[in-house]
Parts: sequence; C-alpha cells; structure tokens
Amino acid sequence: MKVGILGTGIVGRTIGAKLEELGHDVMIGTRDVEALLSRHEAAQYGESFDDWRARNGHIPLGSFAEAAAHAELVINATNGAGTLPALEAVGAANLDGKVLIDISNSLDFSQGFPPSLSVVNTDSLAEQIQRAFPGARVVKTLNTVSAYVMIDPGSVGGGDHHVFLSGNDAGAKAEVDGHLREWFGWRNVLDLGDITTARGPEMLLALWVRLLDVFGNGNFNVKVVT
Amino acid sequence: MKVGILGTGIVGRTIGAKLEELGHDVMIGTRDVEALLSRHEAAQYGESFDDWRARNGHIPLGSFAEAAAHAELVINATNGAGTLPALEAVGAANLDGKVLIDISNSLDFSQGFPPSLSVVNTDSLAEQIQRAFPGARVVKTLNTVSAYVMIDPGSVGGGDHHVFLSGNDAGAKAEVDGHLREWFGWRNVLDLGDITTARGPEMLLALWVRLLDVFGNGNFNVKVVT
Repeated sequence: MKVGILGTGIVGRTIGAKLEELGHDVMIGTRDVEALLSRHEAAQYGESFDDWRARNGHIPLGSFAEAAAHAELVINATNGAGTLPALEAVGAANLDGKVLIDISNSLDFSQGFPPSLSVVNTDSLAEQIQRAFPGARVVKTLNTVSAYVMIDPGSVGGGDHHVFLSGNDAGAKAEVDGHLREWFGWRNVLDLGDITTARGPEMLLALWVRLLDVFGNGNFNVKVVT
Repeated sequence: MKVGILGTGIVGRTIGAKLEELGHDVMIGTRDVEALLSRHEAAQYGESFDDWRARNGHIPLGSFAEAAAHAELVINATNGAGTLPALEAVGAANLDGKVLIDISNSLDFSQGFPPSLSVVNTDSLAEQIQRAFPGARVVKTLNTVSAYVMIDPGSVGGGDHHVFLSGNDAGAKAEVDGHLREWFGWRNVLDLGDITTARGPEMLLALWVRLLDVFGNGNFNVKVVT
C-alpha cells in the first residue's frame, strides 16, 4: 500500500520503518528535506535521526506535500504544534477522499515536564484537522501509546490492552481497525464514536505523562476492563 | 472510625451506606438538611434520595460543618461545582490535620452530554482544595469509577483494574491505600505522586464519559498494563 507519513520524529520513523519492512511503499514527509539532512541532531531519546537514516536510507524522504501526494493513506505523526502547518503544506487536494490517521498530541512543554495540552476539553487536534480538511477521512488512533508500543502491542502485557478509534467515517475506521490488527498485531481496538470522542484519548495523555514518570519508561498501556 | 462524608449524591450515599455497614461511625453532610429532606426529588439514576433514606435513616445527616467536625476522616463526595463552597462551609478548623479524600469531578453539563471539565489541564480540583485548605491532608482517589465500582471493584473484571492516588502527604496516601483495600477490596492502588498528578485521573473523565456512552453503563474501569 502507498503510505505517506508526515513527520520524522520517533513516531514517524518507527511506523515508517515497520511499514516498509512489511512491504508497503512508504514515503516520509518533512517540512524541509535539506534542512533535516543537514541538522545532525543528537537523539533526545532512542536513536538520532542520522542513526535511523543510516539503517533506513532506502525509505524515500520528501516534502509534506510529496509524501501525501504519493499516498493512498496518510499518517499524521507530526507533533501537535506542527500538525496544522504540516497539513496546510500538504494541501486539501492531497487529502481529499483519503484516510488520514492522526496520531498527534498537543503536548506543550513550554513550562517543562509534565507538559500540558494546547488543545483540550472542548476541542481536540483531531477535530481541528477534520474541520480544516473536511474532505479527509480522519481517524484518531495510537496517540495513547509510545511509538514502540504502537507497532508492537504484544511487547506490553502480551497485548492485553486497548487502542482507541475516533472518526466520523465508519468505512475509514473499519479500514484502520484492520490495519492496526494486520500491520501491528493489535487485538483490542475500541471504537469510541465520532471525531469529537478524540478528546478522551487526547486527554488521556495527562495521565500517560504521569505514568511515564512513575514507571520511568513508556512500556505500558491501559486496558478497558468490563 | 468516625467518617464525615460531604454530599448526598449517589457517591456520598453509596459510600456512606457501605461504611456504616462496615461498622464505622458515619455522618453525612449536606448544605441544608431541612431543604434536602423536603425536596423529594425523583431519582436521576439509581434510587432517589428518599428511597435511599428509607433504607438508611439510621445514618445521621448534618450540615457540612457538623459532618466534618464529627470526623477523623473527611470524604468529599460533592459535585465539582459544589466542592469549594462545601469546604468553605466546613471551615479550615474542621479540616486541619485530617485526611481529606477527594472524589469530586468538575463535570460541566451546561452544554449537555458529554460534559466538559470546569477545571482542567494546568490545574485540578484536588489542587484547588489543597491550596485553599493547606492544613488538610488531601488525597485524590476513586473519581475515575462509578459509585458502585468504588465500593465493589470485584464487580468489574474480578477487580483486575486500577484506582489512583494523588497527594502531597505520604502518610495520608498510605492510610487511604489501606482503606481502599480493607473497606472496598481494591487490589491495585497506584500512587501517581503529588497532588498535581490528580490532573491525570481528573482528565481521564473525558474518556470515561465516552466509554459510558459506548457501554451504556458505568460498570467498567481501566487497568494499567505493563
């Protein structure tokens, strides 16, 4: 499948490498390819972009617009502050009719750790995206777990925990449900409802960052027990 | 143990009846006892106050101040909007040095269902309480589950799920941890840290109200899987 991933942070890199390994035709989009390749930033955690690139140089990099134009399915893995600018760079024409998986979180680290959320309570990033790009079939998912858990849910508690879906398009959610199971091995995918339900998983980050502090790593998730 | 419960909603009634059944010396506090007894409101869900009172008439009712003055341990089971007014009616002298279990949620139903939160993101009800009453030993807990699950965690998934603790006073948290286990049978009590960590469980309500909508009842909880 032709997949365009927006963002070269840990989420974009991890999912990009996994989908490429699964045989998909992946392009990763960034704001400015030349600037990215000349930055040589040290790793904040995990590996640096350069180290990732040394292992995954065969995955094409392009602009945000090129990655989305290439794709049948677009994955937003930018950070929350960068999400709407990235999608504006993509343009509506490259999103119309496509499933857009939104993994972003509006984490605001301007006051240090723990971050607050810059969009919260009566709105969500997913809703902002859907309003700005009504032709995109936005599905919020995976934002409640670390990049490593996203692609390997079995690494935490044998996979006995949940990921959520929020979106207005039932067909898009069914397609994403299938991808989560087939690509990454998710067994428990819980459809919360329309795009406004994304407020729940986005606000779960307020608990997630505290659990990160308790456990000292992101190898955890929540299970909804009934 | 002498326990004062603030609030005669479903949470105050359910916990009050349970603690009385366990042999504790319970007093339930309300803003205006005469007004409460003359209202005869129909049940919003569960049973009406009158029906509860018919079964639990032996549990003394008093003003907020009387219930707290009576108590070694105070439980705030008022709704979020009523929390600070109720505690102001109690007065700092009736709270100083006492453990104050805060179960409240700042749910704002003014725009209908689902509610938003009136305190969120960079503050929490628990922090507001601790700031207003620095002599109280505030512990946030139980706000993430329905009243029935609070006192009977085993009724959901055999009790294999979590309740959280937030508070600045380690001794108070250890005491509340013991109460949760001994009174109600909680097996998984997760200490998140200081009182600011209450933002996580309070913001979990944004997901909780969506899960309520999905399941059609409140008989669920989250488990933190590692």
